[in-house]
Amino acid sequence: MAFQKPTGTQDLLPGAVEKWQFIEDKARDLCRRFNYREIRTPIFEQTSLFERGVGETTDIVEKEMYTFLDKGERSMTLRPEGTAGVVRSYVENKLYGEPDVSKLYYIGPMFRYERPQAGRQRQFHQFGVEAFGATDPAIDAEVVALGYQFCRELGLKDVKVEINSVGNPASRAAYREKLLDFLMPMRDSLCKDCQSRMDRNPLRVLDCKVDQDKFKGAPSILDSLDEECTTHFAKVQELLSAMEVEYVINPRLVRGLDYYTYTAFEYKAQGIGAIDTIGGGGRYNGLVAEVGGPDQPGIGMALGLERIALILEKQEIGVSGAKPLDVYLIALGEAADKEVTTQLFKLRQAGFSAERDYLGRKMKAQMKSADRMQARYTAILGEDELQRGEIALKSMESGEQQTVKLDELIQALH
Amino acid sequence: MAFQKPTGTQDLLPGAVEKWQFIEDKARDLCRRFNYREIRTPIFEQTSLFERGVGETTDIVEKEMYTFLDKGERSMTLRPEGTAGVVRSYVENKLYGEPDVSKLYYIGPMFRYERPQAGRQRQFHQFGVEAFGATDPAIDAEVVALGYQFCRELGLKDVKVEINSVGNPASRAAYREKLLDFLMPMRDSLCKDCQSRMDRNPLRVLDCKVDQDKFKGAPSILDSLDEECTTHFAKVQELLSAMEVEYVINPRLVRGLDYYTYTAFEYKAQGIGAIDTIGGGGRYNGLVAEVGGPDQPGIGMALGLERIALILEKQEIGVSGAKPLDVYLIALGEAADKEVTTQLFKLRQAGFSAERDYLGRKMKAQMKSADRMQARYTAILGEDELQRGEIALKSMESGEQQTVKLDELIQALH
Repeated sequence: MAFQKPTGTQDLLPGAVEKWQFIEDKARDLCRRFNYREIRTPIFEQTSLFERGVGETTDIVEKEMYTFLDKGERSMTLRPEGTAGVVRSYVENKLYGEPDVSKLYYIGPMFRYERPQAGRQRQFHQFGVEAFGATDPAIDAEVVALGYQFCRELGLKDVKVEINSVGNPASRAAYREKLLDFLMPMRDSLCKDCQSRMDRNPLRVLDCKVDQDKFKGAPSILDSLDEECTTHFAKVQELLSAMEVEYVINPRLVRGLDYYTYTAFEYKAQGIGAIDTIGGGGRYNGLVAEVGGPDQPGIGMALGLERIALILEKQEIGVSGAKPLDVYLIALGEAADKEVTTQLFKLRQAGFSAERDYLGRKMKAQMKSADRMQARYTAILGEDELQRGEIALKSMESGEQQTVKLDELIQALH
Repeated sequence: MAFQKPTGTQDLLPGAVEKWQFIEDKARDLCRRFNYREIRTPIFEQTSLFERGVGETTDIVEKEMYTFLDKGERSMTLRPEGTAGVVRSYVENKLYGEPDVSKLYYIGPMFRYERPQAGRQRQFHQFGVEAFGATDPAIDAEVVALGYQFCRELGLKDVKVEINSVGNPASRAAYREKLLDFLMPMRDSLCKDCQSRMDRNPLRVLDCKVDQDKFKGAPSILDSLDEECTTHFAKVQELLSAMEVEYVINPRLVRGLDYYTYTAFEYKAQGIGAIDTIGGGGRYNGLVAEVGGPDQPGIGMALGLERIALILEKQEIGVSGAKPLDVYLIALGEAADKEVTTQLFKLRQAGFSAERDYLGRKMKAQMKSADRMQARYTAILGEDELQRGEIALKSMESGEQQTVKLDELIQALH
């Protein structure tokens, strides 16, 4: 009986995993430079957190969550996104009591029961940041720029940023009226999802993939923004330009989640067919209070790492796989075997990557193994060398061979 | 309504998370030197994999798994340990077809529904390695030494390795008989768990915490090992000595999992009270075939990172929290604000960690913020400096201040 990984999950094996390490190292280094610090929240949370924090009317909560009862009969859910858990943690751990803005990042697995397709898995991974405590447009611009810079430093080509303002609650209410006036006459011609959204959250109707053509003459939310929202949005744009972030304004952009206010944005890239959104985010000034915290503003973004990995591949951006080995040690004979174990361990302690044979292979097969591992050096210890306390060191690049004292092997490799 | 993290889970916040980053970076670097490469398998797997691969009679499978039905009515389980998934992946991806020994490592979350206590969480984290394809005692010794070296390089004091051989199937069968002869007369005096184990897996009776005193005169498995097992075990010891790994032999050590053969071992440390085992492992030559693969040998070890983090704390081994910031930029006035955004972004692009204020605070409060972030430099841009294309750069250590051209700021900081 052989087992298979669950549908919609992946094994990342040596040779492929290095691309993920590269992506994550880049994320961590970028966050160091932008002064975001890591937060790790649990893989599962109380189900009600996501109902409250993601929104009960969203596809995620309605259709896609991995929800189960634990052995204590509590309803738990594998996190479908990263923000709700971070907000819960920010509130529970009273991070809002700190004097500076809380700038946090996370990298990790998320879970949604969706139909798997290229770049869309049931267990998928996100890199995201959240910043709490500031309404300054400078932080909006910084968060947008961080995700953009991440894509640029990975080498992704043709990444575009789309931005919008979905306004404060007052502006949204005004827009909601105008939009309903526009939608009402065509209500019967819209898809079922749209009709349902008209009642619950009309802004999300414009997000519909099916009915997009019908919305050509729809009113723009930008015309309903009050002065405060307009000024905030203008400042975000000014600061994006100050950082030379290339963006376009998309007044239809509302994002799938219910909790955005003011700035909303998405990152788009070529190379993954129909789905070209690789991430996005926005400001969520009501969310912290929504999950029981004080009235603190927040803004965040998240990028889908499966999609980014896929684009790196499609755009043929090379990420090196195995790193070359420093030295491969070969023992000839039983007594040499023990000494090789000692030398191998010493080399590894000294910082070198070092390897030996574990399959009782002949010297020629071991040399081939050293080749496969791109060893810079092989070091061969026979009975004679052992007697003299020496080892034969061969450069695999130049073919040059020298004999060095065993206790000078480390220096010889430096 | 405020939310709480699920019982038995943790939030790792800035200030604490750096210790985890340090532990993981050490694991990754150690694996580079020992030539183990990362593998990532899904967070959940088919439940039957763990029943087969961990053992249906184990506490883990009987009592502690997070098992649920997905929306397709398939029974899934959050992985309770790392080996089963890696073995499944090794088989499914046919890694056994590769010419060299498959040396793999993993770092990640595992899940067991247990009573939470110090160093034991329901979501916990392990660093583990698995090596497939070799029976050579050199790989047994290497795996033992890797875990030992990991603890040493982290700075843990008084880490001890206990090793044993649980033999091949023939030796185990012989020992099983002898052990049952010893246990049978005391059967009624043993705890319920022991009585049940006597029927299913008598070796694990000696693992019992309750009845330990009664087993003083129990036969040792080492006396039942055949020549092959004895030679293998002797060689493992010889090679551990060659690497100066300090170990003791504990003939009672059988580990909690059913699938071990030959070498079994545990790492023990001071500082976490009653539970002093921080990890362990062993050889599992039958496991690959058990989960549907070819008859390939394997050996692995895993270490509990919560326990290691706890010991680092108890032993007061310092791990630095926040890294000092390179430069904190202060804008005085609206026009300067935009230029600071540009300069901040350029510094971050150039590799510096750089920060600014987002709360509209006065200069004095911003200087305090720079202090909290241990900024090496502050750079102050007022209207006058902006006019002249300059910025005031102050070393926070020496207090020295200089004026530099805006377009020479990066060079000035190098």
